[in-house]
Amino acid sequence: MRDVCVIGLGLVGGSLLRAAAAAGRKVWGATDSTLDAQAAAAEGYAVSTDVPQALRRAAEADAVIALAVPLPALDTVLPLVAEYAPDCVLTDVTSVKTPVRDAVRRTVPTARYVGGHPMAGTAKSGWAAGTATLFVGAAWVVAIEEDTDLAAWREVATLALDTGAHVVPLGCQAHDEVVARISHLPHLFAAVLAAVGSFGGPLAAALAAGSFADGTRVAGTRPDLVRAMVEGNRAALLPVLDEALGKLGAARGALASTGGVAATIEAGHAGARALAEHRNASRAAVTVDLTAPEARDGLVALGERGGRITAIAGEVASGEVC
Amino acid sequence: MRDVCVIGLGLVGGSLLRAAAAAGRKVWGATDSTLDAQAAAAEGYAVSTDVPQALRRAAEADAVIALAVPLPALDTVLPLVAEYAPDCVLTDVTSVKTPVRDAVRRTVPTARYVGGHPMAGTAKSGWAAGTATLFVGAAWVVAIEEDTDLAAWREVATLALDTGAHVVPLGCQAHDEVVARISHLPHLFAAVLAAVGSFGGPLAAALAAGSFADGTRVAGTRPDLVRAMVEGNRAALLPVLDEALGKLGAARGALASTGGVAATIEAGHAGARALAEHRNASRAAVTVDLTAPEARDGLVALGERGGRITAIAGEVASGEVC
Repeated sequence: MRDVCVIGLGLVGGSLLRAAAAAGRKVWGATDSTLDAQAAAAEGYAVSTDVPQALRRAAEADAVIALAVPLPALDTVLPLVAEYAPDCVLTDVTSVKTPVRDAVRRTVPTARYVGGHPMAGTAKSGWAAGTATLFVGAAWVVAIEEDTDLAAWREVATLALDTGAHVVPLGCQAHDEVVARISHLPHLFAAVLAAVGSFGGPLAAALAAGSFADGTRVAGTRPDLVRAMVEGNRAALLPVLDEALGKLGAARGALASTGGVAATIEAGHAGARALAEHRNASRAAVTVDLTAPEARDGLVALGERGGRITAIAGEVASGEVC
Repeated sequence: MRDVCVIGLGLVGGSLLRAAAAAGRKVWGATDSTLDAQAAAAEGYAVSTDVPQALRRAAEADAVIALAVPLPALDTVLPLVAEYAPDCVLTDVTSVKTPVRDAVRRTVPTARYVGGHPMAGTAKSGWAAGTATLFVGAAWVVAIEEDTDLAAWREVATLALDTGAHVVPLGCQAHDEVVARISHLPHLFAAVLAAVGSFGGPLAAALAAGSFADGTRVAGTRPDLVRAMVEGNRAALLPVLDEALGKLGAARGALASTGGVAATIEAGHAGARALAEHRNASRAAVTVDLTAPEARDGLVALGERGGRITAIAGEVASGEVC
C-alpha cells in the first residue's frame, strides 16, 4: 500500500486524508488554509501549510499525490508538483477532468497522472466538514485515457476503493459530459430557483417546503466552489444548458398557448423512472485482467454502461455491470 | 368542534381525515376511488364511494366540508356540493386558490367558502401514503378575501390547527403568486432536470448523487397531479417562469461569452441565505381579535410578512410574526 500525500484539506481532501489513514495507509498533507491545517494537526495528522515540503516527502516515499484543491488553484499547485515531485503517481478530485488532464500534460508531463472524481459531497466545506466515511458507497470516477499507465490507474483505483467508494472507469470527455448533466446543470438550476424564490420574501420563506427545499439545497454551497466547477466545465455544459433551455422554453410556450404542460411533466416523470430503473437493474459480476491488451477498452466500456469496479486483487479488477 | 366531511381520500384528503379523527372530531368521507375507499373503510373509517350521501350527511350535521380532489375534479364535485350541501362551511386543499374561489362563486354561491392549501406532501399518492401526522409543523394557507366570512374562516383555520399545522392567512392572488415561485416552478425545473439527466443513460444513473437527486426528487410525483397544479396556476406561473428563463438565459450568455457565471451563482447563494434568514428571524407574539373591524386586514398583513397563526381560542387568534 503506497503512502498518500494530500494537497488541499477541505471537505474532500480532508475526508480523503482521514479515510486513507483509517485504511491503514501512511498519510500526510498540506494546505494553504491555516485554519484547516491547524484543525487537522490538532487531530494528530501530519499536516502543515508547507506544500513544497509535503511534496518533497512524497517524492522520497514514492507516494500517491492527491490534489484536492479547487480547479483554479491547480495553476499554483501543479508547478510545485513539477518542481518537487514530478515522477509520482498523481491524481486529483476535481469535478472536471479534461481541463485538468490538459494542464497536467502541459505542466507535469512526467507525472504518472490518473484523474479522479469522487461523486460525494455536502453543501458544507472545510476540514471540519470532512469525515473518514464521506466516500462510503459513493461512485469515484477514475479516468482512463489512451496514454494512462494502467499500473498507475490501479494505484489510484485502489486508493478510491480503500475509502469505501466504488470505481467507475471513464474517459475524461465522457466524464465531463455526464457531470454537466447530473451535477453542473442542477447547480445552475438550484441557483436560479433560489434567486426567483427569494423575490417572494419572508412569505416565500414561510411557505417553502419539499419541492423548493429539495430544488435549492445545493444553492447553499460556497459560491467559489460552484463557480470553479461550473465554469471549469464550460465546453461540456453549454450544449446541456441549451438542451435544458429548449425544454423550459417549450414548456413556457405550451403553458402560454394551450395551457398544457403534459409533454414536459411526462418526460420528466419518464426520465426519473428510467434513471431509477437503471439504478435498480440487476447486475452481473465481471472481472478485468489489468495486464490484458484489451483491459483499457474493457474498463471504459464497463464504466460507460453504468458498471463499477468494487475490488482489485493483484492484477485483477472485479466488479459488476448491468 | 364541527364534524368534518372529506371528499377525496388520496394522500392529502386521507391524511386530513385521519388527523381530524385523531383530534377528536367526528369524520366521514367519500371518494370515487374504490381502492382508496376500501382501504379507508378497512381501517374503520366511515367512508364510501357515494359522494352525494356523504354530502347529505354533511348538510344534516352542518359539518365542515373539505374538498381534497385534484383541481380538474372540482368541475364534477362542486355541482354535487351545490345540490346536496349548499350552505355548509366549505374548504379545499388545492394548490391554487384563485380558480377554485371563482369556481365556487359560480357554482355554490351560498357556501361559506374559505380556501385552504396545506403546504405538505410527498412524492407518493393515494390513501395508503397518508398519515395522521402529515401536516404536523407544516404551513396551511387559509385564504381571506374581501367577502370571506370570518366565522367560517375561524372554523377552517381551527381544523387546520387541529392537524398540527400552523395557519398562514393570505389573499388568493398572493397565495397563487408565491406558490408559483416556491412550488410550481420547482416542479417544472425538476421535470426538465430529470429529462436532461435521463439522456445520460445508465452512466448518469450510476453517477447521479446529491445535487441531481435533490433537484429531481419531485419529478417522481404522479404526472396528473403535477399537471393539475401547474396548469391550474397558469396566470401566476407564466411571469415567474419568464423570470427564471431570463436568469437562465443570462447565465447561458455569460458562460458562452466571458466564461463566468458569478452573477448567477452569487445571486442564488444570496437568495438561499436570505430565505434562511427569514426562516430563522426572531418572531414576536401577536393576537388578533377576530371580531374587530380590522381583523381581516390584520390577518392578511400578518401572512404577507411571513407570520403565522398558531392557536385560536374563542374569538382570539394568536400567532407570531417577524
